[in-house]
Amino acid sequence: MPQTHHIERHFTAGELLRDVVIGMSDGLTVPFALAAGLSGAAASTGIIVTAGLAELAAGSIAMGLGGYLAAKGDEEHYASERKREEVEVREKPLEEATEVQEVLAAYGLTPEESAPVVEALRKRPQAWVDFMMRFELGLEKPNPGRARGSAITIGGSYVVGGLIPLGPYLLTSNARTGLHFSVGVTFLALLLFGYVKGRFTGTGPVRSALQTALIGGLAAAAAFAIAKLIT
Amino acid sequence: MPQTHHIERHFTAGELLRDVVIGMSDGLTVPFALAAGLSGAAASTGIIVTAGLAELAAGSIAMGLGGYLAAKGDEEHYASERKREEVEVREKPLEEATEVQEVLAAYGLTPEESAPVVEALRKRPQAWVDFMMRFELGLEKPNPGRARGSAITIGGSYVVGGLIPLGPYLLTSNARTGLHFSVGVTFLALLLFGYVKGRFTGTGPVRSALQTALIGGLAAAAAFAIAKLIT
Repeated sequence: MPQTHHIERHFTAGELLRDVVIGMSDGLTVPFALAAGLSGAAASTGIIVTAGLAELAAGSIAMGLGGYLAAKGDEEHYASERKREEVEVREKPLEEATEVQEVLAAYGLTPEESAPVVEALRKRPQAWVDFMMRFELGLEKPNPGRARGSAITIGGSYVVGGLIPLGPYLLTSNARTGLHFSVGVTFLALLLFGYVKGRFTGTGPVRSALQTALIGGLAAAAAFAIAKLIT
Repeated sequence: MPQTHHIERHFTAGELLRDVVIGMSDGLTVPFALAAGLSGAAASTGIIVTAGLAELAAGSIAMGLGGYLAAKGDEEHYASERKREEVEVREKPLEEATEVQEVLAAYGLTPEESAPVVEALRKRPQAWVDFMMRFELGLEKPNPGRARGSAITIGGSYVVGGLIPLGPYLLTSNARTGLHFSVGVTFLALLLFGYVKGRFTGTGPVRSALQTALIGGLAAAAAFAIAKLIT
């Protein structure tokens, strides 16, 4: 299917999936590692659950609102650059025409070869601005309303992901029992999540599953070691 | 300075800054909020320090390795798409020529107007592939070696950011005293960080400072409320 990528670029489910992946990879990893680390220091699950849920709240807000502001920033950046290009196209058409030539010269086109493109764009100021945005500045028009959806998806996926490793600690009062079940459940969840992620991103499902589980394992081992060291 | 954006795009310090911002915004926010949350539940700073440092270890590994794999994934995606375009340009030049026409038609160019570009690219297969990568697929060539540098910068910035809110808890044994100093120090750090970030990203320093402090405050308040509720 050599044409798949054409569809992919305009397929907004790709952005949704990307946000789920961003939220869930951290949600499965950090609360899991924090809880595992605290299991190395605490005997009862009370403090682990408190810390885990507090982390879930903090992490989902930080990631969700952070994603919101990043997307809003992209929208504003695009709008202000577009306004600037509109002014330049209107007020300095000769300089902008030279810039079109320069863009195409990077692909080996001589000024004579790019002249028809320059002429065609001069007749269509809006298309000219679109051309400069994409080809000179490399900016894609952001999806309007994406900021809010993105914030909710990232924050929500973080919470959903984080409840998986915390679940076992909610069901037992013994930290060690909680740890064992949490490791098992989260390891399976990381493998499954990595596998699905790999299928969609094209990294290769098995490799992605192993990489995702490895990151979770390393983070949990480091947190566990640090908590053991200082208590 | 209408030309600033041209420089910006090729300025790799922009990528470094972006990574510092990614690591530090979460590093200042999540450990701060977690420690504040636990202060609502614990009377001594021992468990707060343990949880905070465990979170720092987990978060920096998850973010750093996550960033590494994301950047590696981009590199591989670019390389595989490029290989596909090379094959297509070689084996289906007519179809690819039509695709060049289609790309330019989106900017109002007629087939006659884009014909010289098509002809010019056909003479230069490598430039043709470059053209398709950028203009058809919207893919920028990733900076080689960026993955490792990105991982270290994001992870390191997370640790540096996170040590600021945890510092006060390391210096006192009373959770409430630690909380008060942590709130003060972190609030100042968030304002300063937001201000500097705003100057570089063009959001406006004061607005960025307030937004950054607001996210940190909301995350900490939510974590505090949850920890209070369940203990």
